[in-house]
Formats: sequence, structure tokens, C-alpha cells
Amino acid sequence: MRAVPGVSPARRQEDAMAELIEFQVPNPAIIGRRAAIIADLADLLPAECLVTEPRELAPFETDAFVSYRRLPLAVALPETTAQVSALLRYCSREGIPVVPRGAGTSLSGGAIPQEDAVVIGVSKLSRILEVDYPNRAAVVQAGVTNINISQAVDADGFFYAPDPSSQLACTIGGNIGMNSGGAHCLKYGVTTNNLLGVRMVMFDGSIVDIGGKALDAEGYDLLGLICGSEGQLGIVTEATVRLLAKPEGARPVLFGFDSSEAAGACVTDVIGAGIIPVAIEFMDKPAIDICEAFAKAGYPMDVEALLIVEVEGSEAEMDAMLARIIEIARRHGVKTVKESQSALEAAAIWKGRKSAFGATGRISDYICMDGTVPLGQLSYVLRKTGEIIARYGLRVANVFHAGDGNMHPLILFDANNEDERMKAEMAGNDILRLCVDAGGCLTGEHGVGIEKRDLMRHQYAEADLNQQMRARSAFDPNWILNPSKVFPLDGRPDSLETRPAA
Amino acid sequence: MRAVPGVSPARRQEDAMAELIEFQVPNPAIIGRRAAIIADLADLLPAECLVTEPRELAPFETDAFVSYRRLPLAVALPETTAQVSALLRYCSREGIPVVPRGAGTSLSGGAIPQEDAVVIGVSKLSRILEVDYPNRAAVVQAGVTNINISQAVDADGFFYAPDPSSQLACTIGGNIGMNSGGAHCLKYGVTTNNLLGVRMVMFDGSIVDIGGKALDAEGYDLLGLICGSEGQLGIVTEATVRLLAKPEGARPVLFGFDSSEAAGACVTDVIGAGIIPVAIEFMDKPAIDICEAFAKAGYPMDVEALLIVEVEGSEAEMDAMLARIIEIARRHGVKTVKESQSALEAAAIWKGRKSAFGATGRISDYICMDGTVPLGQLSYVLRKTGEIIARYGLRVANVFHAGDGNMHPLILFDANNEDERMKAEMAGNDILRLCVDAGGCLTGEHGVGIEKRDLMRHQYAEADLNQQMRARSAFDPNWILNPSKVFPLDGRPDSLETRPAA
Repeated sequence: MRAVPGVSPARRQEDAMAELIEFQVPNPAIIGRRAAIIADLADLLPAECLVTEPRELAPFETDAFVSYRRLPLAVALPETTAQVSALLRYCSREGIPVVPRGAGTSLSGGAIPQEDAVVIGVSKLSRILEVDYPNRAAVVQAGVTNINISQAVDADGFFYAPDPSSQLACTIGGNIGMNSGGAHCLKYGVTTNNLLGVRMVMFDGSIVDIGGKALDAEGYDLLGLICGSEGQLGIVTEATVRLLAKPEGARPVLFGFDSSEAAGACVTDVIGAGIIPVAIEFMDKPAIDICEAFAKAGYPMDVEALLIVEVEGSEAEMDAMLARIIEIARRHGVKTVKESQSALEAAAIWKGRKSAFGATGRISDYICMDGTVPLGQLSYVLRKTGEIIARYGLRVANVFHAGDGNMHPLILFDANNEDERMKAEMAGNDILRLCVDAGGCLTGEHGVGIEKRDLMRHQYAEADLNQQMRARSAFDPNWILNPSKVFPLDGRPDSLETRPAA
Repeated sequence: MRAVPGVSPARRQEDAMAELIEFQVPNPAIIGRRAAIIADLADLLPAECLVTEPRELAPFETDAFVSYRRLPLAVALPETTAQVSALLRYCSREGIPVVPRGAGTSLSGGAIPQEDAVVIGVSKLSRILEVDYPNRAAVVQAGVTNINISQAVDADGFFYAPDPSSQLACTIGGNIGMNSGGAHCLKYGVTTNNLLGVRMVMFDGSIVDIGGKALDAEGYDLLGLICGSEGQLGIVTEATVRLLAKPEGARPVLFGFDSSEAAGACVTDVIGAGIIPVAIEFMDKPAIDICEAFAKAGYPMDVEALLIVEVEGSEAEMDAMLARIIEIARRHGVKTVKESQSALEAAAIWKGRKSAFGATGRISDYICMDGTVPLGQLSYVLRKTGEIIARYGLRVANVFHAGDGNMHPLILFDANNEDERMKAEMAGNDILRLCVDAGGCLTGEHGVGIEKRDLMRHQYAEADLNQQMRARSAFDPNWILNPSKVFPLDGRPDSLETRPAA
């Protein structure tokens, strides 16, 4: 627990939580030059692409992490890659930090600005440039929303696979920054498995094309490195993504159990048998209550844990896979098996699951963790999570991508109770440490952002972190891109030793 | 075409081709210290792990690229990660180049040594450390052969997906270095899609663990960067790989066409319709003749081009997918459709395909290209390849992973005819340039190695290459690991500018 050196000009109630997170001290020399910088930016962009008035800056002062707010120096909303290039060339030359932004749906504070930074948002880069079925690819600008890609190819029988719950709003640029996942990534993989290429602007304004429509590429896999780099290696302005053919049919099935541990063990055994459905989502009793009240999805109310298993393909294929899953579930004492009987029922089941975070927000304040564990540890980690929460006297709702081992405990607390808020934050940290100690990691799909920056030391040895930071410096030598995210604030590149020990 | 500054002490006939490739000039200061270096290495390794006699070094003087040979300074065959660490710490301190080596099956010269280098081979790191079905993972040492992983889990109904034709010999360490593919990677992806984690020794001997059994990871995707980095970022000593459940059944089906272009167009339309079989392999008439003579696979002899399409799943699933593929093939005038009637027939079909390179070697000298193109360009590139070959008065056999767009023209020539040899090399370069110009890339699965080093300038602008080299320097600042591979020899890191232009 450390002090907050920077003080927000517009401190709010939500900022209290931010006191747990030390923030980068803004550079007064840059803030002092604000008027001149804004004048320079106005030369680089049409007037409607530059936001500088405090009232208009407000929507950009945080993201979906919301526990921290800062007004940025200015917000640029470029309409072309050339404008992004001009902005980065200018900011590099002047040493002005840049915070890239998609739709601001980050759950880890990845898009939270700082007072001495220019936010570069990609929302106006919102065109689908090309749909190319023979190569099963689409080329889209970075500000296109996730759902828009699937909508554009739906009538032709195709879709774009990664499906974050925020898919109505989140952009493909943000998805690439965070390597976003979603419920259906169990079968189809996360963003990195569905990304073929990017056009990216480097820190100094140079424009590079990486990857493309062909398999693999020579040289190092820079595309993979960029995916999930949280906007620190460059600003992606265009993406080439993989299109997939829609399955013949899909059917979500509800499996109710008497305990979370039984449901977790069932998931482990399904995957361990080599069966990969499209999705296996988990809800415990509190999550079932919350989601059912909100979505009227028809979830069974007499069980302690629920799995939503989606199978797809022809009727025969779905029946065959379901029979194998039901057999395994019986061995774990499954109490209820309920197949959706119509497209409407199926939609309600998914609506309930996808609105879990929003529905929880209606009844309580919460923070959402994103720890991921090897599947064999699922039951153990669920039990230990319950023990941690009980120790702090809090409540938790577990609703997560069980097939991937990607846990999302929602820790409920009262934001007006400072003591509870602190306990929730501490319980969250304990849970993430538990995931790491069980052989897992801090984040499956939400990214590190500001939220988990300091926990990186629990996951990585100093040599590992230094290597990550050296890789970053190879792209952004002066650390102007999203500088206060991902890595702990102390131990930054000045201390990096790249020479071999003599 | 440039001169060869280094002269091999054991110049052979095969070296003539190497004159097309400039090689790194060996450092006489290191060669002069050979006896002292060998004495130092002997302190770091048991006697049976160090090879220094010229006769015993001979098997390490080239790899499957064979057109270039050099005796290395010494060969170390460590038995533990700690020994690899000690070797790299020593070589870093002394500034001795290191060439990592798997089984030496590289087709691009990735494992070819140099006279001032110590080869570190992983062949003695050959144990399977753990098989973990609940997490669908296996942990293996880097010298385990590709086929051994699948053999170890076969009885339990699992397999490891990437299947290079050299899978009986090649190691998982080499597969990671080259991001190797194989016929069945159309459905299952290449090495990078099936790799979960590595233990790696860095240039200075430090040991890092990257990735693991959990989904994704926080921070940058260093695992993806390392996969395909051709041994230049570190030496992998252990790998955690994904296991998959074996399908219920699999069936290769032969589709014969009257022209290569019709077969290519059929592949484009199958993939464009969103149908992803396990494999779609292509053979033109010369390849059919060569493989049938060798393997008696029952290939149709009255067609100009052949597709081997493998479908898998239940009988009903296979029938359903095949029906859709046959419908598309009919639109392209398919002449023959022949399903394998038994496991024996299926094995013969694959034996013919997988021995294509060996069978070709029995009738002619050849070089094999590895260019990869977007699928929509398949017919165009096949036609243009034919034109290039005709212009040089040579012959070509095309046998390749068509579903991935990963072409393997085998350019036939007489190695005793210096003029033909030169023409073959030039035709190969023209074909790779054609692939790049068609929106593709130089290599799908064989890597850059020495072979395609100079062609990297055709694929990449200077800024792109510099960025790749900066990424490399972030791992190996003094470029001691496999130094003469992947990048053109001129324009190396001394000229890299990492500061922003003022």
C-alpha cells in the first residue's frame, strides 16, 4: 500500500480505490505547455478530431475499470493512419506521453489517461475496408466494433470468433491491445488466434505492415508480440482478421450441480477427455440468482453451480458430443440437464450470461478478477477463493469461462464503506496470487493495465520482467506509449542491464 | 550474386551452390584459441557430451539444406538445462558464436554451423517429463522427436498435432525454432498454435520459464515471439505442448483434375466456403509420377493434378463434409474422386505424400521452395511458377500444403551441371519473389535460415527489418546466437537507430 503522488484535479468518490494504486507523477513541464501543444495538435488534425474542453474531455477520463480518473491533456480522434502517424511523430519529438484508446471498455484500466498525456482514440477509424471470402479474411479499421465484423459477414454464413461480453461496444483495436477473449474462445481461440495482420504506427510515426493474408511469415512473430501488448508497442490502425464459417447449428445446454467443486471437476474431466465444446461457462449460486433475476433465462434455481455448455454442428454431431458430456457429468452427480428448446431460449441463456457483470452492478458494487488457472486446478481454486472471501467477510459471485480455466470472481462490496472497499481490493489480490501459485496467471483476457501492474512481481522474477521491458524498449525506446501500464512503476528501463555479466 | 569471403577447410562439390550465398567471415581470433576453448568446454560437460575430433564433427557440418558445409569449432551435447546455461554463460563471456541444433533436418540451413562457432545440440535432452491429460498438456525436453510425443499418448487416445514430413527425426526444439508445420496443420495450426510454454536459456546463461499450462498470460507474448525465432533469442530446453484427442475416424480422399489451375481454384473455393478439412495436399503430374513410382499409393495416373483431402470425425460427419467438397470439385470439372477403402490404403496415400521429397531425391537433384500465398492467388501463382521454370528451361514438381497456401515447388536440376544449378537457384528466387508480390511470404514452415536471408529485403522495408533486429537485440545484445541466419549480413545492428528523429 503506497501513497498517491499525483492528485487529480477532479477527485471523485471512485478515486478512493485508486489510492491502492500508485500513479505516475504527471510531468509539470508538459502540463505547463498545454496551450502550445494544443495549438500544435490543431495543425495536425481537422477541428472536429480534437477534444480539449474539460467538459468534452470527461468521457475520456476513465474506462470500465472506473476506480481511477484523470483528465487527459487532450484527446485526438484521427480519421486516417496518416494523421495517427503525424500525431505520434509530434508526440515523440516533444516527449509527450500517448494513451491509445479503443472504446474505453477495458476492465483493467488499460485506457485510463494521465494528465500529461494525449489520448489517441481510434473511434473514427470505423470502416470495414474489405471482405475477402476466398482468403477467409476481413480487413477493418481499428475502431470497428467487434460485433460489426460478424454482422457484416453474417448473411454470407461467416463470423469473427472472439466474442467479449462487451462486443457491442469494444473495438477490434482494443481487442488486439488486450488479446481479448470471450465465451466462445474455448473452441476458437482468443484474438491472437484469429488475427492475420495489422497496419501499425510506431512511436516515431513510421508506418509498418505486419502479417497479412498468407500463413505464417518469415522473421520473428512480431504480430503475436503486438497482440496483447496493451498499446505500448505502437498504435494499430488496421487489422486483417480471420473469418470462420458459421456452424450448421448450435445448442446451449444447462448442467446443474450440488456444489461448485463438482461442477469444476466435471469441466476438468470433459476437457481432460479431449472433448472441446464451443463454450463451457460456469456460474455459482450467487451468479445464478443475479443473472436469472435480470434475464429470466430459465436457469435452474435449486442448484449450487451451473455449467452452460454449448455444442455445435449438425444435429447428429451435437447429440453425439452431448451424450459424452452427459456421461461425464453423471459421474459428478449432475442434478439437472436442460437443453434449450428454441432459438429464443438459447438467446436468453446467453443474454443472462453476457449481462452478468451489468446485472451484478445493479445490485452491488463489485470488482472483477481475471485470473486463469490450469484446468486441473479448477476445483481447488474455487474452494480456496471461497475461503479467502470468507476470511474478509465479503461475498463473491463466480461467473466465468470454465473451459479455458479463465476465472472471473466478482467480489461484492459497498463502495460507501471504505473498510469494505479496502478488503475487497485485498481479497482480489489474494485471489490473483492464488491463481499464480496454482500454476496459472494474472489475466486471461482483460490485460494488466493499471490494475495488476504491481502484481506482475508476484508472477515474474526480475530477470523475466526485465526481458519484457527490453522487448518493449526495442519498439518504444523512450516509453511514450501508455507508459504507466503493465509494468511496476519502479524498476523501469534505466536499470536494465543488457550486457552479459563478465 | 556476391563473392564468398570465407573458404571452407573441407570444400565439397555441394559447396558450389553456397557460392550464391555470402557467408559470415569466421573470426580468426576465436579459431586461434580453439584448443583453449575446448579445454574450457571440457570443464563444463562430461567427456561424452563434447565432440571435437574432425571425423566426429562431420555429421554436424551441415543440415538437410546440404548446399553448404562448415566444420564447427566444437559440438556440445548437454544433458541438462544447467549445462546449457553454463555453456551459454561461457560463450557469452568469451564472445564465441553459438549455433543451436535439433536433429539437423532444417531445409533452410538454419542449423548449419560456422567455423568459429560452438554447436549446442539438444539430442541428449530426450525425455518426456510429464503427460497431463486434465490440462491436455505434455512437458517434454527439447530433443524429444516430434513423433515420440504422439506415440507416448497414442494408447490413451491423444496426439500432438503438427506433423512435419521429417517427424520421425526432427525434434520439438527444432520445431519451435522454425515454427514447423505439416500436412495436418490446416485444421490444427502450426507449432505456435500448439505450444503452451518453454523453459529457455538466455544468451548469458540465465534460465527463464515462459508460458505454462494456463490460457494466455499477462505482459507481452514472448512465447509467440520465441516460436519461429530460429534459435536467435535463446536455447529452448523444455517445452509444454498441447495434446489433442484423436478423431473418431479419418479418411483421405483423392481428387484428380485435368489442370493444376482447376485443382488450385477448387482449393480456393473449398476454403472460401468456410470448409476446413484436416488436410488439403496438392500434387501436379510430375509429383504424382515420382510419388506413385516410390510408394505405390494408388494415385490416379491419368490426371494433371491431384488433391489429397483428408476429412475426419464420425462416419456421418465425414460423409457430410465430403459431399460439400465433392459438389465444389464438380464445379471445377473434377475427373476422379477416390476414397481410401481401408486403413492400409489410407496409410499408403500418406506415405506417398510424406516421402515426396525423398522420392524426388532418388531421381534428380532438387531445391525446395517454401513460399506461401493467400489462397485466392493459388491458381495464379501455380501458372506463373510454370512460366518461370519454362523460362529457365528447367523442370518442376509441385507437391504442397494447398489448404494453407504453403507451396513447395521442387525445382529439378543436375548438380553436375554448374549452369543448371545456377538457373535453379535463380528460378527459386524468382518464385519466392512472385509469392511475396502476390501478397504472400518467403516461408510457411521451413524458416529463413541461410537460404532466404538475402530475400528478406524483398519482403521487408528497411524500417521493418530494423524493427525485427531491434527485437532480437533485446534478447541477445551481442548477437552470439545463430548469428549468420535470418537477416542479411549487411545492415546489422551497428546501424540501428532507436532514438526518435528530432
